[in-house]
Amino acid sequence: MADHIEPLERLADMFRRLDGVGKKTALRYAFNVLNFSESEANEFARAIESVKKDIKLCSVCQNISTTDVCPVCSSVKRDRSVICVVEDPRAVVAIENTGHYSGVYHVLHGAISPMKGVSPDKLKIKELLSRLKDGEVSEVIIATNPTVEGEATAMYLYKLISPLEINVTRIANGVPIGGDLEYADEVTLRRAIEGRYSL
Amino acid sequence: MADHIEPLERLADMFRRLDGVGKKTALRYAFNVLNFSESEANEFARAIESVKKDIKLCSVCQNISTTDVCPVCSSVKRDRSVICVVEDPRAVVAIENTGHYSGVYHVLHGAISPMKGVSPDKLKIKELLSRLKDGEVSEVIIATNPTVEGEATAMYLYKLISPLEINVTRIANGVPIGGDLEYADEVTLRRAIEGRYSL
Repeated sequence: MADHIEPLERLADMFRRLDGVGKKTALRYAFNVLNFSESEANEFARAIESVKKDIKLCSVCQNISTTDVCPVCSSVKRDRSVICVVEDPRAVVAIENTGHYSGVYHVLHGAISPMKGVSPDKLKIKELLSRLKDGEVSEVIIATNPTVEGEATAMYLYKLISPLEINVTRIANGVPIGGDLEYADEVTLRRAIEGRYSL
Repeated sequence: MADHIEPLERLADMFRRLDGVGKKTALRYAFNVLNFSESEANEFARAIESVKKDIKLCSVCQNISTTDVCPVCSSVKRDRSVICVVEDPRAVVAIENTGHYSGVYHVLHGAISPMKGVSPDKLKIKELLSRLKDGEVSEVIIATNPTVEGEATAMYLYKLISPLEINVTRIANGVPIGGDLEYADEVTLRRAIEGRYSL
């Protein structure tokens, strides 16, 4: 039976580990790959390996990068006095796509969530605080997701950072509550950045 | 910028080649892979290579298989006097999933389509006709998709096979017109097989 063709099933199983991919979609993807050329399939396999092998964290902002310091942190065009704090690299992509942010970033790699066992020490908060020491930073924009965890993280960071006499802002709720930064359209995100308010 | 992280972009580009995957979904999948463990990612890469390397066509029914003769064709439980002709291996999966078909298959690998430049000689029709020579086959069920191309292929095969004094049937239009066998539910497909009519 065709659904017991082991290599195809194994590949479909891998596709099912991707967000929102069910049984039929996974099998469809596997059949797509079967119709790829040999070189296309090899390219696909190499691309998967490369994502794990060649991507590390930027030593400054903790965003994913192929270099030790990411292009944003090493760019002379970016304003180092403003740091936008986000939960994950996808949020950086979303904000960069607005084309209306010229500061730098800090990626926490998560949000505080007692339910999921994510305590503050599991996030890149220590790294953020050490960036704030030298007095160069005048504003920290907290752009964690507008969810319970994201808001809790924002309040936690506000309490840590505001004693340092740094302006702490939060992106405006142009971003729909309960949503995810990754799926916000560019205009909404731009409004959210422009309409940020002091905490 | 995170959307210019080359390995991630390259992987997203590969995901975009899968059916129905757009820019945002492709990037989301690439990030999913980034969060895989090293061994999971390697397993994924190996699975893709394996699909191209280890799958060939069954020498009898032309379905995809890891062996020279596929499990259906080599099974003693299957009725070799009935051949179900389908456009692609996905249709075999769909029909096998009904659990109500005990004959064997023949996979054409496409349907006649002058628009797409698919002429009859590009399909596995010669291979089908050679299976009908020895007089063992009493019925050919044509289960091409209920689309213009599928119906045209059905009529073409009927004209070729009916002179051989073999009963040529077509699955009933329980399958919604314009649809694809892969997405039909099992009950609908079962009705379609039971309600087949003589051409």
